[in-house]
Amino acid sequence: MHALIIAAHGSRRAASNQEVHAVAERLARLAGERYPICRAGFLELAEPSIADAIRQAAQDGATQVSVVPYLLAAGRHVVEDIPAAVAEAQAQLPGLDIALSGHIGQSPKLLEVLLDCADQTQTQTQSGT
Amino acid sequence: MHALIIAAHGSRRAASNQEVHAVAERLARLAGERYPICRAGFLELAEPSIADAIRQAAQDGATQVSVVPYLLAAGRHVVEDIPAAVAEAQAQLPGLDIALSGHIGQSPKLLEVLLDCADQTQTQTQSGT
Repeated sequence: MHALIIAAHGSRRAASNQEVHAVAERLARLAGERYPICRAGFLELAEPSIADAIRQAAQDGATQVSVVPYLLAAGRHVVEDIPAAVAEAQAQLPGLDIALSGHIGQSPKLLEVLLDCADQTQTQTQSGT
Repeated sequence: MHALIIAAHGSRRAASNQEVHAVAERLARLAGERYPICRAGFLELAEPSIADAIRQAAQDGATQVSVVPYLLAAGRHVVEDIPAAVAEAQAQLPGLDIALSGHIGQSPKLLEVLLDCADQTQTQTQSGT
């Protein structure tokens, strides 16, 4: 069973962290059997940690885990901190197949998100709302 | 002519700001005649400001501008700071049609970006790289 972990920074603002958990829930509904487990994990300021989210996925039956950095820029968090959290989980769960993806800021599909947001605006403007 | 402005936070790390400018350039190539002008603007720590990016788009011939907040969470920057920057530009350019979209974190299409990142990881794992 394949799990997808959204690896976010975490915020002092509870609503921001809740927004990431809500993304994970919507993603689980969309992904269906492709990723039966979708969870959020945080580098700091929020729970669970990324390593804890991976451990929980393993306890729920995941045999493969894909960790996707939910960050727009390839800064220290993407280059150092998230790989370190993944390595921590891998050391504790040597039998689990954990893979780390590029951060969402590098995805070509992010361009379509930007266009879609802009198009929605246009529609709203035209409809006068 | 319709312009799309990517409204980002800005970073002390020059490479992160450059990454946003690179997204704007890739977006311009993808958007073609739909958004002939695509530019990045920043709230702080980087140039140009969001208002300056809008002004520059108008100077380049834009008659309509869609501003897309390049942020994942609906925090103060999305709720207050970016609308204030847009209002500043609108006050200076009353004839320009400026519209503000939701932040990218609320886009349903962002879920597809997450799945795509996770799928890429799977492919890399299977091919042994």
